[in-house]
Amino acid sequence: MTRNLDATDVDDLAVGAWILGTGGGGSPYLNHLNMQQIAATGTQFELIDPQELDDDAQVAVVSTMGAPLVMQERLQDARDVARVVEIMGEYLGSSFDAVMATEIGGSNAFQPLMASAHLGLPIVDADAMGRAYPEAQMTSFAIGGLQPWPLALVDPRGVEAVITNVPTWKWMERTSRVLTIETGSMAATCKAPRSGAEVKRWGVANSMSFAIQLGARVREARAAHEDPVAAICAAAEGQLIFTGKIIDVDRRTTGGFLRGTAKLDGLDAYSGYNVELDFQNEWLVARLGDQVIATVPHLICLLDATSGEAIGTETARYGQRVALIGITAPPLFLSPAGLKYVGPRAMGYDLEPVDPCP
Amino acid sequence: MTRNLDATDVDDLAVGAWILGTGGGGSPYLNHLNMQQIAATGTQFELIDPQELDDDAQVAVVSTMGAPLVMQERLQDARDVARVVEIMGEYLGSSFDAVMATEIGGSNAFQPLMASAHLGLPIVDADAMGRAYPEAQMTSFAIGGLQPWPLALVDPRGVEAVITNVPTWKWMERTSRVLTIETGSMAATCKAPRSGAEVKRWGVANSMSFAIQLGARVREARAAHEDPVAAICAAAEGQLIFTGKIIDVDRRTTGGFLRGTAKLDGLDAYSGYNVELDFQNEWLVARLGDQVIATVPHLICLLDATSGEAIGTETARYGQRVALIGITAPPLFLSPAGLKYVGPRAMGYDLEPVDPCP
Repeated sequence: MTRNLDATDVDDLAVGAWILGTGGGGSPYLNHLNMQQIAATGTQFELIDPQELDDDAQVAVVSTMGAPLVMQERLQDARDVARVVEIMGEYLGSSFDAVMATEIGGSNAFQPLMASAHLGLPIVDADAMGRAYPEAQMTSFAIGGLQPWPLALVDPRGVEAVITNVPTWKWMERTSRVLTIETGSMAATCKAPRSGAEVKRWGVANSMSFAIQLGARVREARAAHEDPVAAICAAAEGQLIFTGKIIDVDRRTTGGFLRGTAKLDGLDAYSGYNVELDFQNEWLVARLGDQVIATVPHLICLLDATSGEAIGTETARYGQRVALIGITAPPLFLSPAGLKYVGPRAMGYDLEPVDPCP
Repeated sequence: MTRNLDATDVDDLAVGAWILGTGGGGSPYLNHLNMQQIAATGTQFELIDPQELDDDAQVAVVSTMGAPLVMQERLQDARDVARVVEIMGEYLGSSFDAVMATEIGGSNAFQPLMASAHLGLPIVDADAMGRAYPEAQMTSFAIGGLQPWPLALVDPRGVEAVITNVPTWKWMERTSRVLTIETGSMAATCKAPRSGAEVKRWGVANSMSFAIQLGARVREARAAHEDPVAAICAAAEGQLIFTGKIIDVDRRTTGGFLRGTAKLDGLDAYSGYNVELDFQNEWLVARLGDQVIATVPHLICLLDATSGEAIGTETARYGQRVALIGITAPPLFLSPAGLKYVGPRAMGYDLEPVDPCP
């Protein structure tokens, strides 16, 4: 089903994608304003179902790599996202039929819209994470064993590069990450191009429309004076696992990532309990006292307790009243191949995955 | 004048290029052995005068970036140098007419031979430094304001990249350096391709045959039981500025470079005096007590006092008996544009250049 996104869809996407960002992917605030303005000028964003792609369609896969805190300070120009797709097309000597997000979480959900605004390409209703993950190899395409190269990278100062070959997905992460760090821990990238057949087989289908629906449920709950957190849990089959207040955030931008720990003091039913959340761009592990209650690849979402607005690892601050919800990861990411890329051990934790919704 | 290098030329090149390396460019030892063996199989190395290049000839400019200490530990495969030229050709969609060295100093003098061995291209008798310098923007081509991009890079693990655009020469250094560091502080690179006209206008002409001559003078002096250091000074218009013994070397591989200080205790006429040599891959500044007696861009060459063999920043060690000689830099590198790229301030020293041969 092909449809054009309207202004409300764009607003709902900002809310839903931020929830699916699980703390990362970058706050969509700035890119959302940018796309609101572009939509207001009459620009159409055409969303196409991945099943409608021809097997040999060429799909550009875009994301901005970097540390979320930097993305809050450096406004991104949509033309940089368009430019990185053009560089990839020039390198391949061919053109693209559509564009899609690498990660639906946070600001990165807006990257295909930013490219589409300048290139007029339709946007595939899919991504390669179903959420946000910190590293470039943490995708369904990597889990599927697809080719990791080439990758194009653009920094608005005029730094442009193509990684033309790598021995592994992790090497693509390493090489693109050091270039990203050198340009200030933020760079627009166009990942390895995917055929329509690859997107249909390995993409996380309909994640963009799911993010829009999630945002719509929050909007409707707020309008009806209902609990947005409950609406999110209902729409995403999530589970409330803690409510409390943020009492400390230890945060540093290091190695191109935002890393640290946030501490929550329990309120209401959770009074007297504490939760610690570790993060590398995204929330990775939640501990209730000494007990691990949730880990990647399951989704750990920190929300404003009243509005249901997601709280990012770069926007979390002392005193916020929060609701912590968990959402079970899709089966692909829980398979042995999936855990190799996105399980707790892939993030440096000697832990088995813990599902917050048992 | 076109000629084929014979086995003696290859041996002489190793000696002469190591002297012109001014401590850096990497010890030619391993690459010299490699090219000796390749020459023994009948491979021809054709050396052509830059004046014989057509204006529109396409010249590949090669060097290995990295820290000299790493280059002593990781044997380089000549096929990687050939591969990086091929990647550049594939990116440009055209082929090369010849190959040349970025820097004539040290192991990098052998890079065009390594490419030529596998690609059969003639070698241009020129480079872009006339010695060795630590950073990629420190070239006659940068001083001439030529285009810094594209650059191709190869690591033998199968990491291949093309930097397709940069706003400045320094950004080319920064981006290629971080990729080099990430692959272990050593990577084969093919710099921005140069036309025959550009090589003739901005290349350091006949530096390869000069390095071979310098090596030949050392060989002849040794055979005649004459002083090789005096022979080098005569051939290169250099001046002996100190003789002594190395009493300390403080050396670290950091940020992709070999950095530190070597201390010399005077012998013979210099008894009772001390010299300190600062280095970043190459010898940058020499101090006699508190007095600066030589700086870049002038050539500071540390030699074994008896054999005239150059001593590199990675091979200098306690107890070596040494002769320190200085050679005045060519005028291009002493011009205001030249000093901007290769003067003491470009290397982080708040000093005016000091010519060791006043």
